[in-house]
Amino acid sequence: MPSVLRVLSFGLGPIGLAAARLVLQKTSLQLVGAVDADPAKAGKDLAELLGREEPTGIVVAGDGAAALQQLRPDVMLHCTQSYLPLVKEQLLAAIRAGADVVSSTEELLAPELQHALLAKELDEAATAAGVSVLGTGVNPGFAMDFLAVVASAVTADVKAVKCLRVVDAATRRQPLQKKIGAGLAKGEFQQQVATGKFGHVGMRESVALVARGLDLRVDRIEQTVEPVLAPEDHKTPFLTVKEGQVAGLRNHGYGYVGKQAVVHLDLSMYVGAPDPRDEIQLEGTPSVHMKFVGGIPGDEATAAILVNSLHGVAAAAPGLRSVLDIAPPRLCR
Amino acid sequence: MPSVLRVLSFGLGPIGLAAARLVLQKTSLQLVGAVDADPAKAGKDLAELLGREEPTGIVVAGDGAAALQQLRPDVMLHCTQSYLPLVKEQLLAAIRAGADVVSSTEELLAPELQHALLAKELDEAATAAGVSVLGTGVNPGFAMDFLAVVASAVTADVKAVKCLRVVDAATRRQPLQKKIGAGLAKGEFQQQVATGKFGHVGMRESVALVARGLDLRVDRIEQTVEPVLAPEDHKTPFLTVKEGQVAGLRNHGYGYVGKQAVVHLDLSMYVGAPDPRDEIQLEGTPSVHMKFVGGIPGDEATAAILVNSLHGVAAAAPGLRSVLDIAPPRLCR
Repeated sequence: MPSVLRVLSFGLGPIGLAAARLVLQKTSLQLVGAVDADPAKAGKDLAELLGREEPTGIVVAGDGAAALQQLRPDVMLHCTQSYLPLVKEQLLAAIRAGADVVSSTEELLAPELQHALLAKELDEAATAAGVSVLGTGVNPGFAMDFLAVVASAVTADVKAVKCLRVVDAATRRQPLQKKIGAGLAKGEFQQQVATGKFGHVGMRESVALVARGLDLRVDRIEQTVEPVLAPEDHKTPFLTVKEGQVAGLRNHGYGYVGKQAVVHLDLSMYVGAPDPRDEIQLEGTPSVHMKFVGGIPGDEATAAILVNSLHGVAAAAPGLRSVLDIAPPRLCR
Repeated sequence: MPSVLRVLSFGLGPIGLAAARLVLQKTSLQLVGAVDADPAKAGKDLAELLGREEPTGIVVAGDGAAALQQLRPDVMLHCTQSYLPLVKEQLLAAIRAGADVVSSTEELLAPELQHALLAKELDEAATAAGVSVLGTGVNPGFAMDFLAVVASAVTADVKAVKCLRVVDAATRRQPLQKKIGAGLAKGEFQQQVATGKFGHVGMRESVALVARGLDLRVDRIEQTVEPVLAPEDHKTPFLTVKEGQVAGLRNHGYGYVGKQAVVHLDLSMYVGAPDPRDEIQLEGTPSVHMKFVGGIPGDEATAAILVNSLHGVAAAAPGLRSVLDIAPPRLCR
């Protein structure tokens, strides 16, 4: 792989912008382009979106496929949407332009789970083009799945996995506060959940990744999503949650072997959640208990792991890869 | 890679035997041979060394090179000695027989550090033979190095690394209790340290791996080894440490950039050490603090990570690999 990778940022929401900002700081990465479909962003110097005075010289393009063809980056840093079918054409555009891809699309963590045909199509296209495509992030991608698999390295047997993640959503970006329902009435929350396009995306994929990584032969994956109501008023930089309104959510994911939940992922994300933390417990021989004291730090960490995965995906064998198949991500300078 | 790997166990000390026992339990591994240079072991059915009644049908061979040539295993599980020059011929014998290697040889974690020429020779031989060679274990290989690199994935910058490991040596194998000096007088301990072949092996290699993984440009690696004296009598299954005798050791490793120790690894291994645990602290943006509550469990874990690395090394690109370059180890069934 080249020692300095030429990177194109596709998707300039809060995470995409944080990741692009980070790319600009790295000597082993060169930001060569930025893309966002939002007409309010296209045409501006990226500096404007980053809140910087000095121009970067990178003008935001609206047409991703054209920018990819023109700039031919080594790798696309992709932060647009959560659902794989919605980003299929963006991924194919990168593949056609010969660019590797690191993507925050949650369903891409374990794309075969809900989109087997599409995963096959992407894998074949990437393999034929000699590029690799990876979905990753903190959650899914690290906190509740990858770390459990890493922890299993020191065990002789694992019977059950429990991962706990508690996030104080007050410290997170606005879209996250909205997507967990902060400020909604309970009834509105339930209506949103019923749409199937609400809340944390990727819980099923995390369960699937853990099950595959530990070869747990899970035959059924389920999840539940419940609102957490605010015990008192809580103000964030973006909104106010009043007492009795929804502060956020609790999302359980389960992987079953018969009637037994051998994988249980327990995610709390709400405004004001106390004692933020990440914990992994593997019940086995021997049992292990791993912890991130204070939790893995939010949006900053998500931007970091995406950027820290760029060199790894550039070095990976072509095709649709998973975080279990390639060298572990690590700090990129 | 084949779905069931044919494994030869080379080295049948406590760790090698624990690893061989584990291989026998795995459906994705088949133990096809066992080797130990000790004449007291050669010729016996492996079951006898494992304390089992039923024979395994595997007779311990004394000549490793001959056994490798005859059995042509997919991979050699190598647990003999700590120092790379002492195991060079054993590794070359495996390479010549077309076998991948997973080894507990501590210096093989970062072989270029102290044996650059030998590392080059092994890399060239392995590459030419199309096999991969990996050094790993819990320490070095996981607790004080690999995990710090994994934790860095969620950081944008790391200025300094601190890893703490506290092991109650009373719970560990006899050779480990001996190698940390349990039961020696203080003066005897100091004499042993002066030989340079005493105590924990691999501290420098751990520092080197962290420095490489986080691209910390360390210009000097140092370590200190001090005895920890027993505050009271302590009996283990293998020996008794009297009050005032050496209970074990404290081993600090440092990686310097100029005058600043940017890597500090702090290892306590002594009989009766309270609050066993593993902790990783990365000082950076953001800082992270990772913990294994109760510590990574001893010799069991070392056997496990060696066995859990077999499929990964079989799938890796040929050559001398490091734990940073290949897919992370995970539970093998």
